[in-house]
This record gives sequence, C-alpha cells and structure tokens, in this order.
Amino acid sequence: MSLVFTSITINTNHLQGMLEFYQIIGFQFKATKVDKGSEVYRATHNGVEFSLYSIKNVQKSQIPSLQLGFRVTDLEKTVESLQKIDGAMCILDPTDMPDGKKSIILDPDGHSIELVEA
Amino acid sequence: MSLVFTSITINTNHLQGMLEFYQIIGFQFKATKVDKGSEVYRATHNGVEFSLYSIKNVQKSQIPSLQLGFRVTDLEKTVESLQKIDGAMCILDPTDMPDGKKSIILDPDGHSIELVEA
Repeated sequence: MSLVFTSITINTNHLQGMLEFYQIIGFQFKATKVDKGSEVYRATHNGVEFSLYSIKNVQKSQIPSLQLGFRVTDLEKTVESLQKIDGAMCILDPTDMPDGKKSIILDPDGHSIELVEA
Repeated sequence: MSLVFTSITINTNHLQGMLEFYQIIGFQFKATKVDKGSEVYRATHNGVEFSLYSIKNVQKSQIPSLQLGFRVTDLEKTVESLQKIDGAMCILDPTDMPDGKKSIILDPDGHSIELVEA
C-alpha cells in the first residue's frame, strides 16, 4: 500500500502568535479566505501542506485542534475497513471531487482525517 | 532558511483503536517502551516519524494532543526569536544531544515543538 502525508492543520484561537511562531521556524504562509469570519493560512514544505485555521474558542469546541490528510490507494476499501474501528466515524463517504476521490473520517480520538485516492 | 518536517506525535487515551485506524491507512508501527506504564508506537513514512503515544486522561491533561518536530538551520537564533512571541515558552534551551543540537519550545497554543539543528 502506498501512503503519502499531504496535510496538517492546526485550529487555533491565537492566530497572530501562531503565525509569527511558525514563520520564524521557516514557513511562508499565504492567507486564504474560507467561511465568513474564518481565516486560513497555508504553507507547503516537503510536499506537506501546513495550515493554521483561526477558530474562536477552539478549547471549548468539539472540533479537535488537529486534522491530518493522507493520499491512499483503494479509498473505498480503506474507508470500509476504517468504519469498523471502535470510535471511528465516517463524515463524508468516498465522493468524486474536482481534485480527486475524497473521504473524511474521524479517528477514535475525534481528529478529522481526510483521505484522497492516490 | 531550510525547513524539514521530522515528526508528528498524537497523544491518545484510545491507543488500541488509534493503532488499528492508522494501520489501515497504511502505517507500519513498531512498539517502543518509554516511561513506566507508557507505550509509544512509531512509524516512518516520507521521512516523517508518526507516533501514537498512550497517555491516560489526555483530555483532562495539560499536555496538548499534538507535538511537531522540525529540522532548522541556526537553532540558537531561531529559538531566540521564538521566545519573543507572546505565549511561546522555551522548555529546553538549545542543548547538545547525542543525535544533534536540540531545543523544545511551546507554541502559543501550547503544542510542544521540537527543533533540531540541520
């Protein structure tokens, strides 16, 4: 099975400090407008997209502060197996998108995992 | 500035389910014994070390569930700049270790960031 890391997203309610911190480490961010009132800053290094997503009250939110993305072979079969794991939950069934076949599934700790077919 | 992703660690109190979940995605884990009572499972893909660290009551813990590692040039200067960021806190000053010069610093969201000199 082929496996490639594609993305890491950290949800934060300290966007300014977080941006400065990771810029010093070496990330070069580009701002992207998303939902009303939200901001995302993205940077790509080693082929991995690293994003900081501004969310108010992330600590009190049900959304865990981490999201990961992977490119996998045989998306359908992978998602079918993942759904059998205790605590895992499929949020988006394998769906054809303009940028490829995609699925979103929560891992047992509630992190949102995006899978794209290789 | 050169920047390389080196590691991602997720602290979990659902180790068994988390292991099964990420094994299905394609990770091949090796168990490592660490502190008394703790277990770490590590897998390396794309040169990035991905670890699942079993921690009881991670939700109630002060330890955020995510740690990241980066290899950077000029560690001393990077850490000096990072310490000036509001909310950042140096946990380990740049120190010579058997595997290289290393520093640990908390980002403004409290994630533990390990920096190793390139």
